[in-house]
Amino acid sequence: MTANERLQALRQVMREKKIDAYLVQSSDYHQSEYLAPHFAERAWLTGFTGSAGLAIVTADEALVWADGRYTIQAKQQLEGSDFKAMPWGSGPGMISPQEWLRDNLPDHSSFGYYGAYMSPAMFANWEQALKGKEIKFVESEDLVGAIWAERPAIPESQGFILGPEYSGKAAHEKLAELRSELKAKGASHTVLASLDDIAWLFNLRGRDIESNPVLFAYAMITPETATLYTSERKLSEELKAKLAKEGIDFKAYEAIFDELKGLPADAVVFYDPERFNRKLYLALPEAVKTISGTNITTEFKAIKNSVEEAKQREAYRIDALALTRFMYWLHQEIEVAKKEINEWEASERLLAFREQAESFIEPSFTTISAYGPNAAMMHYGPSPEKSAVIKPEGLYLFDSGGQYYEGTTDITRTQQMGPLTEEMKLAYTYTLKSSLTLLMGRFLAGATGSKLDAIARYPLWQIGSDYKCGTGHGVGFCLNVHEGPQRLGFAPNSVALKPGMVVTVEPGVYKEGKFGIRIENVVIVKEELNNDSGQFLKLDALNYIPMDTRPVLVEHLTDAEIEWVNAYQQRSYEELKEQLSPAEAEWLKDFCAPLSRV
Amino acid sequence: MTANERLQALRQVMREKKIDAYLVQSSDYHQSEYLAPHFAERAWLTGFTGSAGLAIVTADEALVWADGRYTIQAKQQLEGSDFKAMPWGSGPGMISPQEWLRDNLPDHSSFGYYGAYMSPAMFANWEQALKGKEIKFVESEDLVGAIWAERPAIPESQGFILGPEYSGKAAHEKLAELRSELKAKGASHTVLASLDDIAWLFNLRGRDIESNPVLFAYAMITPETATLYTSERKLSEELKAKLAKEGIDFKAYEAIFDELKGLPADAVVFYDPERFNRKLYLALPEAVKTISGTNITTEFKAIKNSVEEAKQREAYRIDALALTRFMYWLHQEIEVAKKEINEWEASERLLAFREQAESFIEPSFTTISAYGPNAAMMHYGPSPEKSAVIKPEGLYLFDSGGQYYEGTTDITRTQQMGPLTEEMKLAYTYTLKSSLTLLMGRFLAGATGSKLDAIARYPLWQIGSDYKCGTGHGVGFCLNVHEGPQRLGFAPNSVALKPGMVVTVEPGVYKEGKFGIRIENVVIVKEELNNDSGQFLKLDALNYIPMDTRPVLVEHLTDAEIEWVNAYQQRSYEELKEQLSPAEAEWLKDFCAPLSRV
Repeated sequence: MTANERLQALRQVMREKKIDAYLVQSSDYHQSEYLAPHFAERAWLTGFTGSAGLAIVTADEALVWADGRYTIQAKQQLEGSDFKAMPWGSGPGMISPQEWLRDNLPDHSSFGYYGAYMSPAMFANWEQALKGKEIKFVESEDLVGAIWAERPAIPESQGFILGPEYSGKAAHEKLAELRSELKAKGASHTVLASLDDIAWLFNLRGRDIESNPVLFAYAMITPETATLYTSERKLSEELKAKLAKEGIDFKAYEAIFDELKGLPADAVVFYDPERFNRKLYLALPEAVKTISGTNITTEFKAIKNSVEEAKQREAYRIDALALTRFMYWLHQEIEVAKKEINEWEASERLLAFREQAESFIEPSFTTISAYGPNAAMMHYGPSPEKSAVIKPEGLYLFDSGGQYYEGTTDITRTQQMGPLTEEMKLAYTYTLKSSLTLLMGRFLAGATGSKLDAIARYPLWQIGSDYKCGTGHGVGFCLNVHEGPQRLGFAPNSVALKPGMVVTVEPGVYKEGKFGIRIENVVIVKEELNNDSGQFLKLDALNYIPMDTRPVLVEHLTDAEIEWVNAYQQRSYEELKEQLSPAEAEWLKDFCAPLSRV
Repeated sequence: MTANERLQALRQVMREKKIDAYLVQSSDYHQSEYLAPHFAERAWLTGFTGSAGLAIVTADEALVWADGRYTIQAKQQLEGSDFKAMPWGSGPGMISPQEWLRDNLPDHSSFGYYGAYMSPAMFANWEQALKGKEIKFVESEDLVGAIWAERPAIPESQGFILGPEYSGKAAHEKLAELRSELKAKGASHTVLASLDDIAWLFNLRGRDIESNPVLFAYAMITPETATLYTSERKLSEELKAKLAKEGIDFKAYEAIFDELKGLPADAVVFYDPERFNRKLYLALPEAVKTISGTNITTEFKAIKNSVEEAKQREAYRIDALALTRFMYWLHQEIEVAKKEINEWEASERLLAFREQAESFIEPSFTTISAYGPNAAMMHYGPSPEKSAVIKPEGLYLFDSGGQYYEGTTDITRTQQMGPLTEEMKLAYTYTLKSSLTLLMGRFLAGATGSKLDAIARYPLWQIGSDYKCGTGHGVGFCLNVHEGPQRLGFAPNSVALKPGMVVTVEPGVYKEGKFGIRIENVVIVKEELNNDSGQFLKLDALNYIPMDTRPVLVEHLTDAEIEWVNAYQQRSYEELKEQLSPAEAEWLKDFCAPLSRV
């Protein structure tokens, strides 16, 4: 089937269903960040495979919106079809899908979409944007699904329990805490659609989505019951028995809809408008009251307990070994032996080092292995077909992580491969200084991630550099590598950092066509000083993975910064030296040698 | 009349009007920060004179809420009457006025208030807080006004024009810009109730409120007309003629209400829910559409033009002379001559130095003249009756400002009067470092005041110190010393700093029972570097007023900080030396001597 044939087929069903404009989304029923192939409807229909974007199809038009990262790719992939790429952003002449509908859809048209792909928050946004326009919103069937003949099935991976020796808390204890909070909110029920919330609450993991150890499921919790709605094929009898012991029963994935329809009129349902879907929402009887807010489990999950913290530190020790061996290998193969190795090969080798650990499950995201100018593209990933050779000069950036039973890791190091320009050295030094500003300092409890983001950017601003992404994100525990509610970002936000929260600290410098630098460490928030000014918190590093100090212009560091870096490097070396080969250990000792003023 | 007699009189009119609970506010019709004596209803009724607080009176209860600053004062001032002080805040056992009403007012009671004292935003807040409670909100008459026999009249100061040589822009030009923005918002009318917005828009000043050079007035602007509603007694014939030339006509103060009632049904009125009053709002015909948002003039006013900037710098040169003479006087009288001088006498002397300038109008706020532990109280002000002696040891803080035709000033310096403790020196040094962090650095356009606030606090957090107030506030031009929309504060806010905005930078350390330190400078936002990372901005000092560097522990400053301080002090000296007496100049030269590492 060509793109145009698929388009004609969609228009055929749109005519049958009397839908004038249809929204094709890149979404699953759970508002997941990463999509299983089953849900890649926009990519299948249009041929545009970018990680974000949406399409609107009418009788005459077929438009695909893609953000700035994908402008060129969308154009190339849509070429030769009737689909047209629409740049998405705030540039001159750019028009959002909502604006396009407002300006182009005739009055009294019907606008269809599949509600299971849309969160209530997203729906409210569309509704608001089209307010005043005479348009009929139609909750339609999944029209793309209806014409997608050879569609991959929803994955059916096997679930497994992450016991309290890893999770630090039994599911029945988590359920008790959730119920107490639900009661405090005046709710009788909560329905979870977000897969990481469900996985965390039930101490249940799976492999339905690449890099995200989750299972496709819904969950409903009441004061008496906790029900997991998922495909029976994911659950062994043993697993079902374990869940039952925690007070969790099991029903079929789709059974949730009838259950919601059957809720008693006095039920009060708590749900998260960002992480719910409209089909679920519409299944609620009209008489049922709702309370909306961030899922209660989201904040619970963000605060790591002491077992999770200890395990997470173990995960980083495992990672440290793999990454250090990789760094030594890079040094030997490229700097010393001058072999021709490309980014893809390096990323495969990095994976191989991680795979040596018994508890390694899979990468926690697609590895970024980027040499030279490629590293200036924040989300660059090499492929076997397209991959630059890492030369013995300039900088090589690798950003990677693992899913372990001991937790989820995410680390970036930028390595000097040979001679550097002064610009690179200065940028590297200030990227390090920006990191150190957060890693070394204390802050007042109540400070939000947007404040810490500003504090981290400030040193880089002083050399006239800014990075167009957040300073850091929350990290799950053997779960999604990106999790909220906290984040360190430029946009104002009101979530304060709390003891036990884990975030990345990853400032960087990205010079288009030249180089990219990022140093990423992962920290846990800890209580520190408490005095007449209040409670102070600090960020405590979870990982001791050596950083390349060769590019550092020491004269730009303070004495305290030099001291901190030297202690960090020394600790990294001490923790690793016994596990390395003599050659690796010798190299590392040199690599971790203290910085000093000349 | 005793407080209890006033209370009985109020209860009498409440019974006549069938009002079960009445709200007594500290507010005028314009949501002004400072109140003219006419509007001090809560103070008159209850005897509690604090700058903030409110009372609720029922048949059985008479309760006065006052925040933490006033807990003791309220208790003392209410003693002997039936009024009872209620602490206001988030402490244990504290209950807000809304919570008290919710818990104590019987169902179907009537709750009365005078709408002219309440902004629509405030009303929405009360309504929200009492949602679900069976209570009748009653827009009543001003019941306290009705029983206040010897009430001071609303002030009738003479208005005067601040010509374009000061304001930089004629009123008719400002009106044209306002109309264009109104049109863009789809509004036909805007009604201004906030006095500083009206003063700015019409280039009109007065002296109706102490320290705020404004006139009591309303204004309405349409595409064709601009009307000032105020008492005719404030406007000379000459002034009216000048206003007429700018396209501004004049009507009586109270005429606004009938005008609003008479608006055509197709009018679309833009108003600011925070700076409007409910009586005005209710005067609008139901058919009239409204659009709400921050007053358009508020942002216009915040961005100072080049004439205002130049004048403002002049105002600070005038202030610098007065303050430097004051500092020399302090030094001579207390440090050298060991005379016994108290805080009140010092503040009177400071005023006398300011009054020597021809263009000085009045202080821009009540001077804070605080020695030793008194300076730890952020809003302390001495009185002739109660005032500590400034001894030749420790620290003396003075925070003062002037209203000049050239602008509004606000400066704090903390002076070493003699031997200091190490704790004082460290606190002073880090207060300075916190200031320098903002004064020396650049930041990315788009950064909000809450980000800059975090950046400024960070150095002080490192010595375990925080200040429980904002880092800075906007400053008017020959207008209110506090003006928005920008502010540097800990609470999240979404107003980005823009070129031309003026803010104070005033970090500090406040140690209860020991000392208080604040260093306050005033800066204007300027464009700086523009490169591939975007537009950077910087904060440029408007004032060159010497700072005491004697308490500074030089080893805690970076080389760049030392250099910046030395250049600042040198410039202060150069700008002042010609105007000073030889003895003053000699002292200043020494006072501004460069810092150096030992």
